[in-house]
Amino acid sequence: MSRIERPKTEPSSHAAAEGRGTGWPLEPDRREMERILDTVRERVVQAIESLDAIPAFDFDGAESAAAEVRQDHPGKARPLEDVLDLLFDRLAPKSFNNPGPRFMAYIPGGGLFHSAVADLIAGTLNRYVTVWAAAPGLAQLESNVVRWFQGMVGYPESAGGFLSSGGSIANFSAVVTARSERLGEEIARGTVYVSDQTHHSVIKAARLAGIREEHVRAIGVDSGLRIRVDELEARIEEDRAHGLVPFLLVGNGGTTNTGAVDPLQELAAVATRHGLWLHVDAAYGGFFALTARGCERLRGLELADSITLDPHKGLFLPYGTGCLLAKDAGALRRAHSLDADYMPELQTDDDRVDFCSISPELSRSFRGLRIWLPVQLLGIEPFRQALDEKLDLADWAAAELSRIEALEIVAPPQLSTLAFRLRGDDPDGARQDARNRRLLELIHRERKVLLTPTRIGGRFVIRICILNFRTHREHVEDCVQAIRRAVADL
Amino acid sequence: MSRIERPKTEPSSHAAAEGRGTGWPLEPDRREMERILDTVRERVVQAIESLDAIPAFDFDGAESAAAEVRQDHPGKARPLEDVLDLLFDRLAPKSFNNPGPRFMAYIPGGGLFHSAVADLIAGTLNRYVTVWAAAPGLAQLESNVVRWFQGMVGYPESAGGFLSSGGSIANFSAVVTARSERLGEEIARGTVYVSDQTHHSVIKAARLAGIREEHVRAIGVDSGLRIRVDELEARIEEDRAHGLVPFLLVGNGGTTNTGAVDPLQELAAVATRHGLWLHVDAAYGGFFALTARGCERLRGLELADSITLDPHKGLFLPYGTGCLLAKDAGALRRAHSLDADYMPELQTDDDRVDFCSISPELSRSFRGLRIWLPVQLLGIEPFRQALDEKLDLADWAAAELSRIEALEIVAPPQLSTLAFRLRGDDPDGARQDARNRRLLELIHRERKVLLTPTRIGGRFVIRICILNFRTHREHVEDCVQAIRRAVADL
Repeated sequence: MSRIERPKTEPSSHAAAEGRGTGWPLEPDRREMERILDTVRERVVQAIESLDAIPAFDFDGAESAAAEVRQDHPGKARPLEDVLDLLFDRLAPKSFNNPGPRFMAYIPGGGLFHSAVADLIAGTLNRYVTVWAAAPGLAQLESNVVRWFQGMVGYPESAGGFLSSGGSIANFSAVVTARSERLGEEIARGTVYVSDQTHHSVIKAARLAGIREEHVRAIGVDSGLRIRVDELEARIEEDRAHGLVPFLLVGNGGTTNTGAVDPLQELAAVATRHGLWLHVDAAYGGFFALTARGCERLRGLELADSITLDPHKGLFLPYGTGCLLAKDAGALRRAHSLDADYMPELQTDDDRVDFCSISPELSRSFRGLRIWLPVQLLGIEPFRQALDEKLDLADWAAAELSRIEALEIVAPPQLSTLAFRLRGDDPDGARQDARNRRLLELIHRERKVLLTPTRIGGRFVIRICILNFRTHREHVEDCVQAIRRAVADL
Repeated sequence: MSRIERPKTEPSSHAAAEGRGTGWPLEPDRREMERILDTVRERVVQAIESLDAIPAFDFDGAESAAAEVRQDHPGKARPLEDVLDLLFDRLAPKSFNNPGPRFMAYIPGGGLFHSAVADLIAGTLNRYVTVWAAAPGLAQLESNVVRWFQGMVGYPESAGGFLSSGGSIANFSAVVTARSERLGEEIARGTVYVSDQTHHSVIKAARLAGIREEHVRAIGVDSGLRIRVDELEARIEEDRAHGLVPFLLVGNGGTTNTGAVDPLQELAAVATRHGLWLHVDAAYGGFFALTARGCERLRGLELADSITLDPHKGLFLPYGTGCLLAKDAGALRRAHSLDADYMPELQTDDDRVDFCSISPELSRSFRGLRIWLPVQLLGIEPFRQALDEKLDLADWAAAELSRIEALEIVAPPQLSTLAFRLRGDDPDGARQDARNRRLLELIHRERKVLLTPTRIGGRFVIRICILNFRTHREHVEDCVQAIRRAVADL
């Protein structure tokens, strides 16, 4: 029997009924808690210190290691050291080293140590923050975080928002809010407008919210991979003429593909003209609004009805925290609130937020602490500086790559992402793609850096996305050198 | 200026472009990391040790403390000790002490220390587990957890599931999956069946998924607060006769109100007969399937098409982890999967799960570790014993209360929840409610225990819900004594 066995018989003694009161293993005593934390302390510090030295990716033996630890039954208790050896030495290193400084693939994740510590604290305190009345002081800390973000994007006092598990749920709640405000229950005729560069989580969000898949319009983009406003507007008008109900326009505050920023001011004008809800997916790019250049490049962000941010991207948090802001907090409440007999008392004034009333979740972790704590300890300035550095690094990488004759930059950095490929007008696109694929393999040869490909205009291109707080000039230099060597060896 | 200021000018130097490589405050050095963890270690151990001694709730000055820490701007960096004083001494204690042993209100949360430590580790490692190929070994650990749960509920090998942030998202994904499998895109005519005791997150889930609010049918319950199958079936037939499309039936594997378990075998028969998807919300009660008695009382659970579990309830985790299981893993995939150019390679065999393909989330935290780690360190047996103890304690409390002449048990424990009130046939219901409300105030007088009221048949009743691993016989004795004293003093 390899599964959790369903018990067949009554347990022989009901200890509790006989008043057993000590020795419950789920609650370790002080010495045991200290031993656990001291042992784990060494491991996590060492793990962080090793990030610069280990490869950017390493899957040697990863699948067999995974197969070996496959377990259909929880099995017997094991010593802490054995469990940590397995975790830190055998399993974790066989992966994308996405907390490491040379991971410039996908959207890099960072993993602030202070946030990981905040999670330890939050789990220990285990208070309930989604209902204000359950822990007002802690709910206020989370509320503070949302207010900082509101200020950052230029939203008014009357805005609101909540922290989610990531961008996907934030985008989903944005669709639900738009649907509630602009479409109502006649879902079948509702249409949504995105660019063909929009992250698939938006399309997935629409589908989860019951929008027909064929009613999500992927509008074409210009040479900067920004949505074509003329095509967008024509499509809205066409749909309306066909009896459909356009209700949501999604702009990009930095696409995942290339960091393209849609013309947000123009989108806001279109949305206003046609009565659409404007949501901006700024999961990747939103926190650049902390910098002067980012603010300029994201101009118009404050005109959006709602905005997705991903603190686990742009604020370098460990995975697990997104954010949805709405310019009108009431819209979130109308879309999400529901009461019940057994619920604690909910708030009626605007200053005390019951997050459960403005978001899809009820019981969930105290996410605010993993932002609040590092910002208290470090201030916001180091975050601003780190983001500024990323913009510099992307510009620097683009400048360096443009000096390599064989390459062309197909998407210069609008934020901290760029895309390039081998120059060439080979009429056989497939052959050119194969050469670029080979180039990427060569770049990865030494596993020193990880980049990922995507397609632009149907063609295979290579992306560099710089967003880890651990990525500095030396690491981007390593990346450029790896590219240079690969080009030479091709 | 009280907000995060949007920067007005270019920063004077772009440090990164000049090769600055040290002294980045977001990455503390080894000594600083050790100092932080050692300082936090003392606080969290002390916080856990104090849980038995501090009141079950304390809101004295809570609102003013919250008002004082309200912050529209992140402000300057502060010393660790000051920040921890604020958090541990001033804010956290002014709350429901829901991790404490005498919190028997709502559904208690526990907060296993081992899980909090797992969050520290997960945040530090910060690997990506929702795509198998990104970290196969860690994805496998999370997959193991899901497989243990599948075994526990009696699901076959072909089942699947994922960990969510809590029961709300799990219930939401269940609705989406049912919609995808049994309704399709003709959402407007779809109807959902719940009992009038069903948790409001299910109703909210249906609304988020685009189901019309008036199409969620709240079926009446019998004297045990279990759904009336005759009324249910009549309603399904009536709806179908009116051209509606019944597609989802939600049973309770322990209601939040009183722990009532719907007749799951009968519900499965109804669902089969009428082609409905059967979802069981076992967020509160599901983990009692680890015990012999729970297994018996939840019989039929394995017949459900999908099941919501809440490890942050029945496995005593800190808040932040729910689970959705589906008997057919393919159903989850059909409802949630979507591909994109920039995504890592997704798996095609059944043994390697890409959680992003079967759930609503893409980037999110490595939730599996907060279950996997404690179970590795302690084995599953202590969890089973603790759950058995909860069943005993609820029975014991019911027996004790039934010896208090003035009280009547209006909902005897079906799992670990019971409800009682003052006996009396006062024809003036409002007067009787007021007396019971007064009784609850008296029970809470010393703040030693926290209970919450609800309504049964429109009448105010008092609930006892025992689910914290820290709650033992002595704490339930304190609760019974507080009730006894309150009855005497009324």
